[in-house]
Amino acid sequence: MTDAPVPSPGTPSLAELEAGVPFADRHIGPRPAELERMLAAIGVGSLEELADRALPPSIRDTGAVPTTIPAPASETAMLAELRGLAARNTVTVPMIGLGYAGTVTPPVIRRHVLENPAWYTAYTPYQPEISQGRLEALLAFQTMVADLTGLPVAGASLLDEATAAAEAMTLLRRAGKAKSPRFVVDADTLPQTVDVLRTRAEPLGIELVVADLGRGLPEGELFGLLLSYPGASGRIADPRALIEEAHARGGLVAVAADLLGLTLLTPPGELGADAAVGTTQRFGVPLGFGGPHAGFLSVRQQFARQLPGRLVGVSRDADGNPALRLALQTREQHIRREKATSNICTAQVLLAVVAACYAIYHGPEGLTRIARRTHRMAAVLAAGLRAGGVEVAHENFFDTVVARVPGRAEAIADAAHAVGISVRRISADELGLACSELTTTAHLRALWEAFGVEADVSELDGATSDALPADLRRESEFLTHPTFHEHRSETALMRWLRRLADADLALDRTMIPLGSCTMKLNATAEMEPITWPEFAELHPFAPAEDSEGTREMIAQLERWLAELTGYAAVSVQPNAGSQGELAGLLAIAAYHRSRGEAGRTVCLIPSSAHGTNAASAVMAGMRVVVVATDAAGDVDLDDLRAKIAEHGAALAALMITYPSTHGVYEAEVREVCAAVHEAGGQVYVDGANLNALLGLARPGAFGGDVSHLNLHKTFCIPHGGGGPGVGPVAVAEHLAPFLPGRGEVGPVSAAPYGSPGVLPISWAYIRMMGLEGLRRATLTAVAAANYVAARLGEHYPVLYAGRDGAVAHECILDLRGITKESGVTVDDVAKRLADYGLHAPTMSFPVAGTLMVEPTESEDLAEIDRFVDAMIGIRDEIRRVQAGEWPVDDNPLRGAPHTAACLVDKWDHPYPRDLAAYPTGAVPGVHDRKVWPPVRRIDQAHGDRNLVCSCPPIEAYTS
Amino acid sequence: MTDAPVPSPGTPSLAELEAGVPFADRHIGPRPAELERMLAAIGVGSLEELADRALPPSIRDTGAVPTTIPAPASETAMLAELRGLAARNTVTVPMIGLGYAGTVTPPVIRRHVLENPAWYTAYTPYQPEISQGRLEALLAFQTMVADLTGLPVAGASLLDEATAAAEAMTLLRRAGKAKSPRFVVDADTLPQTVDVLRTRAEPLGIELVVADLGRGLPEGELFGLLLSYPGASGRIADPRALIEEAHARGGLVAVAADLLGLTLLTPPGELGADAAVGTTQRFGVPLGFGGPHAGFLSVRQQFARQLPGRLVGVSRDADGNPALRLALQTREQHIRREKATSNICTAQVLLAVVAACYAIYHGPEGLTRIARRTHRMAAVLAAGLRAGGVEVAHENFFDTVVARVPGRAEAIADAAHAVGISVRRISADELGLACSELTTTAHLRALWEAFGVEADVSELDGATSDALPADLRRESEFLTHPTFHEHRSETALMRWLRRLADADLALDRTMIPLGSCTMKLNATAEMEPITWPEFAELHPFAPAEDSEGTREMIAQLERWLAELTGYAAVSVQPNAGSQGELAGLLAIAAYHRSRGEAGRTVCLIPSSAHGTNAASAVMAGMRVVVVATDAAGDVDLDDLRAKIAEHGAALAALMITYPSTHGVYEAEVREVCAAVHEAGGQVYVDGANLNALLGLARPGAFGGDVSHLNLHKTFCIPHGGGGPGVGPVAVAEHLAPFLPGRGEVGPVSAAPYGSPGVLPISWAYIRMMGLEGLRRATLTAVAAANYVAARLGEHYPVLYAGRDGAVAHECILDLRGITKESGVTVDDVAKRLADYGLHAPTMSFPVAGTLMVEPTESEDLAEIDRFVDAMIGIRDEIRRVQAGEWPVDDNPLRGAPHTAACLVDKWDHPYPRDLAAYPTGAVPGVHDRKVWPPVRRIDQAHGDRNLVCSCPPIEAYTS
Repeated sequence: MTDAPVPSPGTPSLAELEAGVPFADRHIGPRPAELERMLAAIGVGSLEELADRALPPSIRDTGAVPTTIPAPASETAMLAELRGLAARNTVTVPMIGLGYAGTVTPPVIRRHVLENPAWYTAYTPYQPEISQGRLEALLAFQTMVADLTGLPVAGASLLDEATAAAEAMTLLRRAGKAKSPRFVVDADTLPQTVDVLRTRAEPLGIELVVADLGRGLPEGELFGLLLSYPGASGRIADPRALIEEAHARGGLVAVAADLLGLTLLTPPGELGADAAVGTTQRFGVPLGFGGPHAGFLSVRQQFARQLPGRLVGVSRDADGNPALRLALQTREQHIRREKATSNICTAQVLLAVVAACYAIYHGPEGLTRIARRTHRMAAVLAAGLRAGGVEVAHENFFDTVVARVPGRAEAIADAAHAVGISVRRISADELGLACSELTTTAHLRALWEAFGVEADVSELDGATSDALPADLRRESEFLTHPTFHEHRSETALMRWLRRLADADLALDRTMIPLGSCTMKLNATAEMEPITWPEFAELHPFAPAEDSEGTREMIAQLERWLAELTGYAAVSVQPNAGSQGELAGLLAIAAYHRSRGEAGRTVCLIPSSAHGTNAASAVMAGMRVVVVATDAAGDVDLDDLRAKIAEHGAALAALMITYPSTHGVYEAEVREVCAAVHEAGGQVYVDGANLNALLGLARPGAFGGDVSHLNLHKTFCIPHGGGGPGVGPVAVAEHLAPFLPGRGEVGPVSAAPYGSPGVLPISWAYIRMMGLEGLRRATLTAVAAANYVAARLGEHYPVLYAGRDGAVAHECILDLRGITKESGVTVDDVAKRLADYGLHAPTMSFPVAGTLMVEPTESEDLAEIDRFVDAMIGIRDEIRRVQAGEWPVDDNPLRGAPHTAACLVDKWDHPYPRDLAAYPTGAVPGVHDRKVWPPVRRIDQAHGDRNLVCSCPPIEAYTS
Repeated sequence: MTDAPVPSPGTPSLAELEAGVPFADRHIGPRPAELERMLAAIGVGSLEELADRALPPSIRDTGAVPTTIPAPASETAMLAELRGLAARNTVTVPMIGLGYAGTVTPPVIRRHVLENPAWYTAYTPYQPEISQGRLEALLAFQTMVADLTGLPVAGASLLDEATAAAEAMTLLRRAGKAKSPRFVVDADTLPQTVDVLRTRAEPLGIELVVADLGRGLPEGELFGLLLSYPGASGRIADPRALIEEAHARGGLVAVAADLLGLTLLTPPGELGADAAVGTTQRFGVPLGFGGPHAGFLSVRQQFARQLPGRLVGVSRDADGNPALRLALQTREQHIRREKATSNICTAQVLLAVVAACYAIYHGPEGLTRIARRTHRMAAVLAAGLRAGGVEVAHENFFDTVVARVPGRAEAIADAAHAVGISVRRISADELGLACSELTTTAHLRALWEAFGVEADVSELDGATSDALPADLRRESEFLTHPTFHEHRSETALMRWLRRLADADLALDRTMIPLGSCTMKLNATAEMEPITWPEFAELHPFAPAEDSEGTREMIAQLERWLAELTGYAAVSVQPNAGSQGELAGLLAIAAYHRSRGEAGRTVCLIPSSAHGTNAASAVMAGMRVVVVATDAAGDVDLDDLRAKIAEHGAALAALMITYPSTHGVYEAEVREVCAAVHEAGGQVYVDGANLNALLGLARPGAFGGDVSHLNLHKTFCIPHGGGGPGVGPVAVAEHLAPFLPGRGEVGPVSAAPYGSPGVLPISWAYIRMMGLEGLRRATLTAVAAANYVAARLGEHYPVLYAGRDGAVAHECILDLRGITKESGVTVDDVAKRLADYGLHAPTMSFPVAGTLMVEPTESEDLAEIDRFVDAMIGIRDEIRRVQAGEWPVDDNPLRGAPHTAACLVDKWDHPYPRDLAAYPTGAVPGVHDRKVWPPVRRIDQAHGDRNLVCSCPPIEAYTS
């Protein structure tokens, strides 16, 4: 009985009663009585007292902060308001093309993946033993991309097609032997891809050459070539000669391809390409006004270790059974820091899972049928136009027809729009008409009518040949693995999805106390709107009048985010935190250039920073200089001043995280910022830890010039099992002109607003919490972290603390001494937590040999205590190892996690079965929270030595 | 690789491509190659050949059946069409009252229960070991009802408030000592309740007296009294004197109460009532144009064994741990048959779970706050009206205000409707205004404006006292159990729901091969529309113009159902199969009466019939005469003729199930029907097994005069863990005037259309399958049953078969001989299946000691084979028991199901742990389908001896 007493009748006024229970009471875990116990354990009397103790006064907001954030709305009121905005969008049949196609999300996939917290609340699969479900789905994704592109190694998805192309560009540069800085791009490439390539090429000194390849490869050397297959215009040209020519000149070749088209067309790998990129959006992923969607990149085997981003690979577990995990992690940005070749640190897992499910549900013959439908619609559409005297630009195409109608394009597009069809307005003389799974013969007739043409579908169908080049027809098989054949009925797919979900631990079963990752509630009311058709089915290049509601929602959200962070302007375009970082640094670089200070290229980064900071700085063309941290974990002010002095007029920026990656509110952040500003530098405040600040302090007010935010951390966009991330960039007034895609700096994402499909989540969160609710959430999160530190401090040293011994919203448990004394590692502790049904904290970041715990405001005391008690129980087990009761290589920690299968098998361990399975004792019935990991501890090295990144033969599982 | 080969390019026409993959291919499990293997095992070459073999030619449809069922639509097209219908509804603020209130379904409950197949696809918890989750939720429901009504024993829900009142009426009659046939009903009772009471009273010889109790109890004897608290008019009168008076005269008293109001009002139990009835709709259950909602009935302890319907009770499992199961099952209709006191055989589990979750999420103080808000809105509304000179009918009320506006009622109601508020139009002079959780002060202002009154909310709020009688204020505590206090944050509730769901085996994890229950796919596309606001938020008594879309949908569905069954008319009003039976029999009785043959009261029922048939006949005032079945399981024609002759002009009807409950197409059904017709009787064909007929034969065409259908069997409404059921009644032309609620016969359900909230499911199914798809589904279901019979026949005798040895859509495995030889029972087999992660078939119906298997068309061959292989494995284990390898009381069968906890504990059984856990061997990783039951075998008798039907103290679980 932890709740408030029943109010005595008659007390609250009608106005109070009408306000109801605030949403914040549902979002925030602890009840008032629980919070009191937490505060008592910390030794403070109230949240305000905690704030006064923990936060340096210098950073606090004093007095009322002007804000346009409205008073908190109930779930019902918020949903009604959002429905009002949604109603201001107009969904049309999307025939605009440009890399975004109409698609049908099978309802079974929508409900069981996109609307299922077991999938959308999961974290990145860094603990593979409790992530086998989504790893299996991602392996299917990789297999699907590899099969369709004819290139054997595909990553677990990238952010979108344009950034995938940019990653391919840099991959070809480092993978190849060419010295040339030139990268040639097919002029018939999606315009947004060309724009992002420009943004990304410039700081790296890559010379981008956009060329009409119909005239052959431009003269001269090159390190790489990007072909489009089909082109943005829909045209299909045979790429073989160009690929050969590029290879002959020492260049490597990437092909941007349409994955659906590849069911009918010879795949890039068979044409000689070294890499393929694109999007999987049209595999059942809602348009969402531009994203999130899963981009792809696949390569030849020899470039596997060059792949950016996540890669799922097959390995084996302690019992020798096949098991999946992220492969080759040492090549990632968080390890390689300023030596990283990409700053990518997430994928689009949720959307990649949707795309993989779509392929599994339809199978190769189903996908082929959809491709054929799409193609035949386009072929017959073109034939009808030709028959009616309209010039069609290309002979060979897959889904897109370009019609030449001199002077009439606008009028025809308007006529089509009037009957609910949006087409691409290429120019006053040309229109693009992209067919898709959604295209019907009724649409063809409507379009013909808009063109003033009369035609008969079935007559034309019989008389019209395919418009695919005869010598580019696909002959090779694809998706032959049983997984693409066994789940064709809805029942079978549903059960497969349930089985995979059951293998994973997500927020719907346990807290996920990941430092710096803020795994808090993704409320249903926030999630419901993202699958409303008005938001989900909007094309990113839809006519402005069709997207009024979404754009208004985005404008409100950008304004609220700017106010909450103390900045002047926000762009939601970056579709991951890493892209937000890049955008922020590009803004700083462009600002310096605009003031004639192009020589400012040094970026100072504290040694404790997330590796992505350094990787982003390099991508922005900066030179990274590391600043030391002192014994307390804070930026070493002396070293900072020394580095500033050393680099003088070359100083571009300082990147810091606040509160620090050590989970501490550094007291001297204002001095730090001032020192940088005095030297002409800009201050970049990484917003990863904003959940410790919201409503209490604003980076833009205490010294930051730019920050990126992680909407998937602080603002409730779910982690999706490892994406989507959304990383808006917020800047002070003087940097506003340098926001991405606003003229001075190019875009960093394919779609104008990045991933607007999930922005209703953050909008809804702010709308329901209001400023006061957000502030309470922050204070509760800080209280939870300090409570964990207070209870666990006597068992595990808490590594850093700030004022009066307080931590911020997370705390670091230092196991280095314990490991030294006992041999038990952080890995052992993390895996043992899985036996308790708990997800491990962040391991070995920011300090190797430690665990970083962030309980967030959404966990109630019972769950926090469950975690704390488990950690204490584990400490006791460690003591028994230390005491020699169990050998260091055979004890419940090293043996963890334990599968049910290993426990009913023969047992020759010095600890009993029941202790292995139920460290706290079995609880009968539904009150039991035991979750069984599907595999035992996974051998990382084995998998990296024997790299397998596509679905293994099914026999591997049944032997 | 079981799918069709990739079509060679160019083959299908655009029209074929446009049609896409039919939905039937997703609904039906086996792929073509799988079906071939199944047919080969049966020994037929095609589905058509199977149909020719299995079905008697005499019942087959020959030639084209005229139908208005359109060609099958894709999921996308169906959803678009249904959205069009939904758009023709208008959702207003529902202030009509009459037992249906506006409510907010918390989004977390909507998504995690109503939209979650783990909840909605579950079956009735007859296998309690794999149903602990929903049993736990139902126990919370029972506790909630018991606490709020102040009566200690509540059932697991009834169909609606009106039928709950009817059940209370008959309960009081049999529980009391009074000889009088009189039942007195408060005239201020909901009109639909009075109507249903009349329908139900008449055939049972109960004399219903509706009386204005303001003038005291009518003179004379009575066996029971129903009071309304508050009344339909909203008025609250003190019931104590009336209860005392009724008791003094030997009568018992039921009180129809508003569950939300009972947070503020002295509960019926404390007022001396013997029973309480009502609805839990306003606890978060969508209005749905009338249902489904969970009705309730609670009673004094001494009447516990008189309760109709389902009752969840606490017992213990084989390890002595607390465990839940359905209590006192021997009192139910399927056991007591014609001695049954009610024909109720389902509950409204899914909706009861929603209501329980609502109470758990809000807790006692949250419910009280909502009640106070509701009440204060009503009080201030009334005060404003009074201040403006409008007469308010009653001094004391909870949520409903009756305003007297002579001659102005229509105009004011129209004005309110124009601003989006629907009120109750009582007469030309009176309006009812019912407040709810949805009522806002803005609504009050809008209503005052409609009345032409000016008033100020906050001024009135301060000046207005409560309108609750001072001496009826609730003083007692309620919902004190921890379960109503521990799940208040969304995270906590979400995890609790996941934990419960994980304890249960539903269709999302395994086939549920229940004979006669047709557990097939509930497709997502069918389920999505039921939570669309346009369907979910419609009040059953909304003005006709607001419900145009739903009514059109219902009209189409009724027409399609009539065509599919060969009848002239259908009513969807019966909200369970049992109510459909009753309605059908009432129609027959009324028909005979209308022809001056009131003496026709004998209902012939074969001995193999479901017990509900007999119970329904008794409720319809008929006398049951049992007809024998022959050795083949068919109706014994000789005995039938003898019984017909014996009862002559007293013959009312014959009730038969077709195919028979033995799973056989009886060849002589036409002769059976003819014999009855010749004798002046009517033929009732129970539609439980319609899934074996659809598209092949129609009961109305081969001799039936009336049938009820089970939309939750054949037409894809999910079983919801034990409800909602929907049981439309279909009749031939001559019986159409006698459909329920159409004048000649009264209504059988509270709402005019029963449970229309779930009808979009069946509409969508038919719309997507088309006649051809339905026919294919039927044939596939028959093939699946015959495949099971073919494969299992050599291991278990198949009890009955029809022509050429074929069964229909289910088959009976006879274990009686095996039990006799080995001591292993059907119970042992059923529980052992849980160790395999499979749900057991129907046990001991229609023949004790047998298992009835119905695989349905939705299971693919892999899953059917998994079941068959498990049954073969079990047969092998039985042989080992027979061979003496294991004792009959200690073997894997008798020990089943095995929990994980029992396996890691000390082990002294003669069979090994791994065999207990993994009968087919453990499969590592996500491919493992092992599901762990949360409890071991449950002791049924212990629980019945020690009846506990509300949440036990939490210590029970932790000891």
